[in-house]
Amino acid sequence: MARIAYLGPAGTFTEAALIRLVADGLIPGAGPAEPLPLDSTPAALEAVRTGAAEFACVPIENSIEGSVLPTMDALEAGAPLQIFAELTLDVAFSIVVAAGRDAADVRSVAAFPVAAAQVRRWLAERLPGATVVPAISNAGAALDVVDGRADAGVSTALAAARYGLATLADGVVDEPNARTRFVLVGRPAPPPARTGADRTSLVLRMANEPGGLAAALSELGMRGIDLTRIESRPTRRQLGTYVFFVDFIGHVDDEAVAEALKALHRRCAEVRYLGSWPVDNPAGATPPRLDEADRWLDRLRRGDR
Amino acid sequence: MARIAYLGPAGTFTEAALIRLVADGLIPGAGPAEPLPLDSTPAALEAVRTGAAEFACVPIENSIEGSVLPTMDALEAGAPLQIFAELTLDVAFSIVVAAGRDAADVRSVAAFPVAAAQVRRWLAERLPGATVVPAISNAGAALDVVDGRADAGVSTALAAARYGLATLADGVVDEPNARTRFVLVGRPAPPPARTGADRTSLVLRMANEPGGLAAALSELGMRGIDLTRIESRPTRRQLGTYVFFVDFIGHVDDEAVAEALKALHRRCAEVRYLGSWPVDNPAGATPPRLDEADRWLDRLRRGDR
Amino acid sequence: MARIAYLGPAGTFTEAALIRLVADGLIPGAGPAEPLPLDSTPAALEAVRTGAAEFACVPIENSIEGSVLPTMDALEAGAPLQIFAELTLDVAFSIVVAAGRDAADVRSVAAFPVAAAQVRRWLAERLPGATVVPAISNAGAALDVVDGRADAGVSTALAAARYGLATLADGVVDEPNARTRFVLVGRPAPPPARTGADRTSLVLRMANEPGGLAAALSELGMRGIDLTRIESRPTRRQLGTYVFFVDFIGHVDDEAVAEALKALHRRCAEVRYLGSWPVDNPAGATPPRLDEADRWLDRLRRGDR
Amino acid sequence: MARIAYLGPAGTFTEAALIRLVADGLIPGAGPAEPLPLDSTPAALEAVRTGAAEFACVPIENSIEGSVLPTMDALEAGAPLQIFAELTLDVAFSIVVAAGRDAADVRSVAAFPVAAAQVRRWLAERLPGATVVPAISNAGAALDVVDGRADAGVSTALAAARYGLATLADGVVDEPNARTRFVLVGRPAPPPARTGADRTSLVLRMANEPGGLAAALSELGMRGIDLTRIESRPTRRQLGTYVFFVDFIGHVDDEAVAEALKALHRRCAEVRYLGSWPVDNPAGATPPRLDEADRWLDRLRRGDR
Repeated sequence: MARIAYLGPAGTFTEAALIRLVADGLIPGAGPAEPLPLDSTPAALEAVRTGAAEFACVPIENSIEGSVLPTMDALEAGAPLQIFAELTLDVAFSIVVAAGRDAADVRSVAAFPVAAAQVRRWLAERLPGATVVPAISNAGAALDVVDGRADAGVSTALAAARYGLATLADGVVDEPNARTRFVLVGRPAPPPARTGADRTSLVLRMANEPGGLAAALSELGMRGIDLTRIESRPTRRQLGTYVFFVDFIGHVDDEAVAEALKALHRRCAEVRYLGSWPVDNPAGATPPRLDEADRWLDRLRRGDR
Repeated sequence: MARIAYLGPAGTFTEAALIRLVADGLIPGAGPAEPLPLDSTPAALEAVRTGAAEFACVPIENSIEGSVLPTMDALEAGAPLQIFAELTLDVAFSIVVAAGRDAADVRSVAAFPVAAAQVRRWLAERLPGATVVPAISNAGAALDVVDGRADAGVSTALAAARYGLATLADGVVDEPNARTRFVLVGRPAPPPARTGADRTSLVLRMANEPGGLAAALSELGMRGIDLTRIESRPTRRQLGTYVFFVDFIGHVDDEAVAEALKALHRRCAEVRYLGSWPVDNPAGATPPRLDEADRWLDRLRRGDR
Repeated sequence: MARIAYLGPAGTFTEAALIRLVADGLIPGAGPAEPLPLDSTPAALEAVRTGAAEFACVPIENSIEGSVLPTMDALEAGAPLQIFAELTLDVAFSIVVAAGRDAADVRSVAAFPVAAAQVRRWLAERLPGATVVPAISNAGAALDVVDGRADAGVSTALAAARYGLATLADGVVDEPNARTRFVLVGRPAPPPARTGADRTSLVLRMANEPGGLAAALSELGMRGIDLTRIESRPTRRQLGTYVFFVDFIGHVDDEAVAEALKALHRRCAEVRYLGSWPVDNPAGATPPRLDEADRWLDRLRRGDR
Repeated sequence: MARIAYLGPAGTFTEAALIRLVADGLIPGAGPAEPLPLDSTPAALEAVRTGAAEFACVPIENSIEGSVLPTMDALEAGAPLQIFAELTLDVAFSIVVAAGRDAADVRSVAAFPVAAAQVRRWLAERLPGATVVPAISNAGAALDVVDGRADAGVSTALAAARYGLATLADGVVDEPNARTRFVLVGRPAPPPARTGADRTSLVLRMANEPGGLAAALSELGMRGIDLTRIESRPTRRQLGTYVFFVDFIGHVDDEAVAEALKALHRRCAEVRYLGSWPVDNPAGATPPRLDEADRWLDRLRRGDR
């Protein structure tokens, strides 16, 4: 039974993502999965490193807040980890109350500060008289309602179900199209089979020379490989060097990607491979197939022209 | 008198940065400055757009948490804004208590969740019995002490001074070398004079074609211009297009930078210029001077060889 | 009076080109020109260097035989020379005979071997019984007829006129579209004014590192400058280094060209500028104008957005 | 028995090269070779196409006169041909006379005009009173002596031996270091095995877009492949398109070369492969081995990190 660590307590968006990943059959290996709530994302990834869990389900990118740096930092340093699947969830909160309560009863609303910022307009319009009190997490906001510390909570549909709460509203968010991408992380292993709509993720470490990054990206661009994300981070370990997180469409078993990986391996101080896995919602051009060029080359080698 | 908007209330790190910018003479135009506390970073930038303030002082990058996306998003869209100065502050909290209290009195500690995460080890070692209660901001943690909602607060030295609190410890942070970079933002105007150690910041918008970003970065790299930051963000306005935030060493009055800007203007769908200003702590190579090449070209044109 | 050296004797294609250049007003400076026949192309160029002539008219490229290496080598080494004009002539021979003779009288045909190769099919069809005897030059073939060493000569219309000979046929050549490009060479001086359809020629010397030439050509390509010729030549002076002859469309007073020249000056061991001059028959894209980008940059510098 | 066509008559430099190629065992297939003199280089290559010969030995490049265009043009168009070997000979003439004659007897010297230009200084110093009379080829200059049309001939050591002539001097040439490179050309077949010091030659056809050639050369440069020759030629077939002759160090069985060939095949309108064969005198850097990168990639695919 695969133990899957995640940011608890039960009822977080991360647990909702984990449940979907299991339901969609995206956990490598057959058999049931056991969720393992931990108190931080780095702790969940560390549990994979120590063997306390087979996988961790962690957020990696949010369309409003950007990259989830604790996840990225934990992937970038330490023993190698690998991503095996991804899942993108719309961000949408549930406003939870004790069973039997309604909006008129709400004087205080518990909310994780990040969530509070994402539902500010909704609260101003629908619960104008209520005071926001900070909660420790989205699931914690539900527990605050359970424990009577607040009349309502900005939480998740999953938490409402887990803790037996009613919801004043579901799918609440000021900014539509807010989404969080979660990834399933394990120890290095053969990546899932190429599907033709895959993502590969790398961390490149290189000396900060003018033109160095452009040259590295050219290894992808010249091979028709489509970048979907890039982000620089100064390294803490060595002054004046940077790491670059780079995502692109393609699989290590795409010939163009394999070529590019080898070229980057030669060019960069270090290439950390974070995995190749099926994309959740395809966007970006697939790397060109080189089959025709391979056949042409074979004919050259055989003298068959 | 220049009104300078910032994320209030009084006592935040942002106000501390603002005070330093004023003291260092980095506010364009002579005369005194009037701090204007507002309740969010986007609100501070919007005040500049509406004319309610001449400038805003906002965080843009944190070495632990990465880019401050509300700042970046506000710079990227809407009426043009421009950066005129920067200041980097070490992140270091003060643990504040009411005057006359000491560690033995502390049962509860108010902390903004982000701050709580950055002092977790310190609290576990030095205040092991205390419960963390969430605060609305770093300055709010001090107010929680003032108002008796908590025995101690994870706050700033400035807030302690403002609110007449004592400090159990200053310079508290688990991860040394944590730093936040703040920028001074105003409406478009001639940039500060070139100093030879300047930073220029751009937002590039382009179609997401394989190789497009590599080609754009080559316009910088081939001219010997040293990238110090790059970050992609999907645009919300148009599916399949990205914006790239790019920082590099150099000033619009460096000839190599002027050339590169013009080339990017031709190559990209849009180049949003966010300003050129003196760097706070120099890092990265200055763009090459082209004076010798200019003289050579002049000789060619005069037929003097 | 400008003395213009050329490969004599009178009656060569080169003299025909020279006459056209004078007639078209392409000789810098007003006033009449004095042709100065010399016995080789290098001798004509050397006469410019010594001051024995103001200009030399020399062939530089032939569509059948390729580059004229003695011209290129003389331009590449020694005191700097500069090209001021070009003229492209169709290669077309005149078959000359003594006045009153016709094809039936022809038993022998004098021909410079290069010319013989270009009219082989014509001779086989029209003068099948005649023996080819080698001549020292195209003009020399006419002199061989004058002096009775051959019944006919493969020569030029100009030579026929000069030496009072009749022609059996004009415009004779096996391969249509054969053309020779001639250039007018002088000592360094301000180039002719930009016309919007100009050619610039360079000799680049650089270390033979993998990627070095590609990087140099990228300085042209990225600026939208259109290469019309490239040719590598090993240098005789230093083992393992190459020179590259590069022609492109544009003038040193095109801003994109000026930028590219400066970039090459920084990148290459040596850039020898061979001039900018109006093209004879326009082919290739003109460099992009940067006026709009210049205005945009000026607005950035003024804060006017 | 392999028939090998060459530019006759017997005694040319080309025949000397052919004899050396045979002696050095560079003719593919075992067994004796039969030289087949023809009257031009294109005729020799055409004989290979028709099957009248198995191979042709032809000059391709001369360090003084540059590329041998009839050879290049014949390789570039028509049914595919392939190069299997190369040989570089120093250019050095023999001054031939009838047996028993010496310098004092020489009033006239037969010389192919190209050869005459290369020994001009020598003749001026050593046979100052002699008149140069044009010969049809280097071997023809020897026949002119045999037939009494001239007292001496600028010819080859091989021709002297073939025609029973004496030599006044051997190794005669004004410009030392003059060399001609000859190649052995056949119909397409598997190339000779990789030796680690090989040359590959291509003809690239592409639309004449700014930056197109730079991008194509980048496919070589970025893979660490060392260009040893490049030459553009306007195509006769289609206005505004060019072909580029490109030579580089490496073999189709070098992984970096195979990658680059496939990339060029995708990028160019046409890539004509002219073969991979051992270089005669190594110059230029061997392509990087990718074995280590291959092993790294294998480990990624196996999850073995």
